[in-house]
Amino acid sequence: MDSVKTIRAMESAPVTTAELAALKDGGGMVTVHGMVHTLRNFGGVRFAVLRRHDGVTQVVLPEDIRLPKEGDAVEITGAIVAEPRAPGGYELRAESIRVLSTPSEPMPVPIHKTNMGLTLDTDLSLRPVTLRNLRARAVMKLQEGLVRGFRDSLNARGFTEIHSPKLEALSAEGGANVFRVPYFQQHAVLAQSPQFYKQMMVGVFERVFEVGPVFRAEKHNTARHLNEYTSLDLEIGFIDSFEDVMSNETYALRYMMNLLRSEYAPQLGSLKLTLPEIGAIPALRFDEAKARAAEAYNLPRVDPNDLTPEEEQAIGRYAAEKLGSEFVFVTHYPTKKRPVYAMDDPDDARYTLSFDLLFRGMEVTTGGQRIHDYDRQVAKIAARGLDPAGFECYLMIHKHGMPPHGGLGMGLERLLKQLIGANNIRTACLFPRDTTRLSP
Amino acid sequence: MDSVKTIRAMESAPVTTAELAALKDGGGMVTVHGMVHTLRNFGGVRFAVLRRHDGVTQVVLPEDIRLPKEGDAVEITGAIVAEPRAPGGYELRAESIRVLSTPSEPMPVPIHKTNMGLTLDTDLSLRPVTLRNLRARAVMKLQEGLVRGFRDSLNARGFTEIHSPKLEALSAEGGANVFRVPYFQQHAVLAQSPQFYKQMMVGVFERVFEVGPVFRAEKHNTARHLNEYTSLDLEIGFIDSFEDVMSNETYALRYMMNLLRSEYAPQLGSLKLTLPEIGAIPALRFDEAKARAAEAYNLPRVDPNDLTPEEEQAIGRYAAEKLGSEFVFVTHYPTKKRPVYAMDDPDDARYTLSFDLLFRGMEVTTGGQRIHDYDRQVAKIAARGLDPAGFECYLMIHKHGMPPHGGLGMGLERLLKQLIGANNIRTACLFPRDTTRLSP
Repeated sequence: MDSVKTIRAMESAPVTTAELAALKDGGGMVTVHGMVHTLRNFGGVRFAVLRRHDGVTQVVLPEDIRLPKEGDAVEITGAIVAEPRAPGGYELRAESIRVLSTPSEPMPVPIHKTNMGLTLDTDLSLRPVTLRNLRARAVMKLQEGLVRGFRDSLNARGFTEIHSPKLEALSAEGGANVFRVPYFQQHAVLAQSPQFYKQMMVGVFERVFEVGPVFRAEKHNTARHLNEYTSLDLEIGFIDSFEDVMSNETYALRYMMNLLRSEYAPQLGSLKLTLPEIGAIPALRFDEAKARAAEAYNLPRVDPNDLTPEEEQAIGRYAAEKLGSEFVFVTHYPTKKRPVYAMDDPDDARYTLSFDLLFRGMEVTTGGQRIHDYDRQVAKIAARGLDPAGFECYLMIHKHGMPPHGGLGMGLERLLKQLIGANNIRTACLFPRDTTRLSP
Repeated sequence: MDSVKTIRAMESAPVTTAELAALKDGGGMVTVHGMVHTLRNFGGVRFAVLRRHDGVTQVVLPEDIRLPKEGDAVEITGAIVAEPRAPGGYELRAESIRVLSTPSEPMPVPIHKTNMGLTLDTDLSLRPVTLRNLRARAVMKLQEGLVRGFRDSLNARGFTEIHSPKLEALSAEGGANVFRVPYFQQHAVLAQSPQFYKQMMVGVFERVFEVGPVFRAEKHNTARHLNEYTSLDLEIGFIDSFEDVMSNETYALRYMMNLLRSEYAPQLGSLKLTLPEIGAIPALRFDEAKARAAEAYNLPRVDPNDLTPEEEQAIGRYAAEKLGSEFVFVTHYPTKKRPVYAMDDPDDARYTLSFDLLFRGMEVTTGGQRIHDYDRQVAKIAARGLDPAGFECYLMIHKHGMPPHGGLGMGLERLLKQLIGANNIRTACLFPRDTTRLSP
């Protein structure tokens, strides 16, 4: 049996930056590891900034210690001492350094600068290293926080997380904006949304959510579109009205912002961000919102059935200026522009029991109540000139019993873009995909 | 302003089954909703089993109440009373019922039976409704628990969650088992793993994980393969050895099992499952494991560089019988069978610093240490007859500095399959994808 090893469970996490800072008055010795983010020399004293998993640590390098290179992976032993001018109010006085690995070439761009001064295109092309910039890293850490908050809020309210397939049969609904994939002897498409699957799972778990990629083959390259993005989806059974879905989103967003406030303060600070306060969120009917924004800001009326990006901006501005909210729900979208599963307003079938949520003037969520009755769903499919036979799997849930239900999909990168005030959604995505960009 | 509504945050979750059970001695009135799972009549007394979001509730229906139909979505008001023979030790004596929706056709299969008696093919074709079966639902709830445990364990140890793209440029590594996707003027492929991206992100966050879909265009339909599955991936910087990766997996798995034990007891009970105890996990070198299993169970030796499913089974059996563990690490896989980024064993370059984890005789994880040095990685790419220029984005991290690192990918559905003792991996997946199945 001598050649049998046993692998015990990992016992601890790497020391956190908060733990290091807490040592500053005790003067204890520590051994930490990290990447040499940058080297500096002030008045003959040599400093390194060590980039660690959750923060940075200023290191003083005495003359008897061999200077590491920028980009080195190092392990440093030394004493933590108070230093008000250093990040976190402490610094590490190195006594020994072990270089664990060293780069073969220096960084192609100054990743240690607050502003790297790169065009977006250069930044994205060098993304594997530009994400090491502390501000870029902070943005992606906030992305994690938003997802955590979304999940935790829903776990606390009886939702079950699901994983639906991203490869689907070509839908009877068709759609120009789908990616087609040769799939053995068939053709598949990439999921544009987990819509049908999350509705199916409402019949199983009543309340479900999913965080996963969705794919949109839209041919336009804009600052607000990605061809692949992360969708935060939820679907709830036993609603009384589509307002229950909005109420759930209000709850989830408030939870997400509170989580960022409590656990992501360093990132918020590094990006100098102010989070929106979420009390109650105002809601305006589509026609009303359109009219008020047009009147307030003298906008031309273009498509009566949809909102232009300019109209969204104006409605967002109106909500901020007149309603005191950075979020605003726009409800009762015209039936013509909503999908076949949207429930029509029983009071006026030209409108649906649906909504978008605008955040700082951009749509970040689409949601609404769905049809649960089999005959009504079949009728609406047929009224659109589609063949109900092509929806057989989906209609199984309506046929065999579904509660009244509704849900929403939130675009993670859009929400983050608006939160950080970025000009371009690509900044809010690790490795964005657009019509020409497939790598890195 | 009268047409402005305000949407407040949802205030509470639906009442839980545990909360209902706790009312049984107080005899309080409640209003609950759910789906009529099945109707029964015992000695003239009419019962319904109500399927709710997190359990089932037995309901007594007095004669003056109109009998609902199976599959109805209902809201029931009544008194909770103790009833030792009912699930959870209580029942609901209905005083009024409101039918919220009603199916247009009865269930095509007896979803209320413990064993529905269906072929796998029929089950999968009717998946939107067969998942409403309580055992099927319990399996998918355990899937949620595994993912939660994986994430929570890693969040507690300083890992950052990432979302990497699933559409990639065609890799220089090629690979027969990739799905190709026409992508505007180019061709994309679907990610077989987040491998390169999670390594890139180690340079940013040091420790990262991802839970997401991966796609394998394998042409064989077996009981252990899916063409799309959910991969639990992690990658860790600053490891001393690839054993640190195994140690991390031991920790995560133990955390996952403990979470199931504490929060998923009803599901474990309904499936009559015994969870594996995870102390330390034994590890055997590939050659040694192969030899011992062959000797112990008189197996033919087939491919010296790989393990057949029969060999995996035998090694699993050996670990259970001789080493007292349902998990076993197999380490030092032959270099020939491992990918180009695997680090060779410095003591013998025919082997790699890599491992698989077998659970009850099936591989559920592949992992290992990766090459971090630029020149070594370029040399290994070239030695395989590949052009390093094709790996430019990936090699950026090696060129500009990477810590020693390693990681692993765990197949969620395989882990769940083994946990529930299913014959076929499709049982452990919501909506499985195989070479012929793209819907539901």
